[in-house]
Amino acid sequence: MKKMFRYNWVVREDWYRWCEEVPEEELLRTRNGGVNGILNTLFHIVDVEWSWIRSIQGKSDFQEGFDRYRSLDKVRKLEAEFRPEVEAFVNGWDESLENRLFNDLRPDGRMVTYTWGEVTRHVIAHEIHHVGQLSIWAREVGKKPVSANFIGRGLM
Amino acid sequence: MKKMFRYNWVVREDWYRWCEEVPEEELLRTRNGGVNGILNTLFHIVDVEWSWIRSIQGKSDFQEGFDRYRSLDKVRKLEAEFRPEVEAFVNGWDESLENRLFNDLRPDGRMVTYTWGEVTRHVIAHEIHHVGQLSIWAREVGKKPVSANFIGRGLM
Repeated sequence: MKKMFRYNWVVREDWYRWCEEVPEEELLRTRNGGVNGILNTLFHIVDVEWSWIRSIQGKSDFQEGFDRYRSLDKVRKLEAEFRPEVEAFVNGWDESLENRLFNDLRPDGRMVTYTWGEVTRHVIAHEIHHVGQLSIWAREVGKKPVSANFIGRGLM
Repeated sequence: MKKMFRYNWVVREDWYRWCEEVPEEELLRTRNGGVNGILNTLFHIVDVEWSWIRSIQGKSDFQEGFDRYRSLDKVRKLEAEFRPEVEAFVNGWDESLENRLFNDLRPDGRMVTYTWGEVTRHVIAHEIHHVGQLSIWAREVGKKPVSANFIGRGLM
């Protein structure tokens, strides 16, 4: 679990660096699928990770949209703001938290119950999935995407 | 670990069903990025999962290319052939295997050492990443992609 979060963080950092070499209009361009753009995707990943980890702990989540974060610098600042709390949560993770329950009140009024282990895996898969989308859009920009390899990153 | 593999298998099955409703020429169409096509991606996922799990156990891996598997039915048959062995490996997984070493002789002649825990995480992330690519191409086909949600699938 911890290693998959760390994998996501190092890949995310690689994508920020990738973005540094791409004109901002390409990062902001509306694209087909996912959340419709490169920078929007990175914002969404940062938002969703923090929001789930806050929510299961009964804390308020992040309610703002992408509109106020339409630059690489702003997304990275948001990340820097959220990361310490996410990292503390991940570093403090142990098996005993796997089956803790979280009651999620959905926007449609339904109450759904998940385990913490289910939510953390959801957050991990969520980011990898969206990064797969970035890798397709990278080709639209004409630039090689960041490697998705877990091996060879010294994560173990 | 086991739950992430199971997540990948149920999502993969959803994608096979999704493919059933798409003309074969769309599944075979050459696309930009990844391994350049929808069915090719599913073949690649099946190939890579089996090959890594065989390789770390010192068994021969899969050497064939996509050319002989250019239909949904053929990819599903390959999957059915490989799955029992992959499932047996995953079901038999325990923590003691995490740090077992695998010496990988790369095509360029270098020897690289990975732990089994590193390889299994690589396989998990590999599939989720490629499925993210499918979700973009699904929009090119004009069809809603399969959900990438881990939550709500009864995996825990």
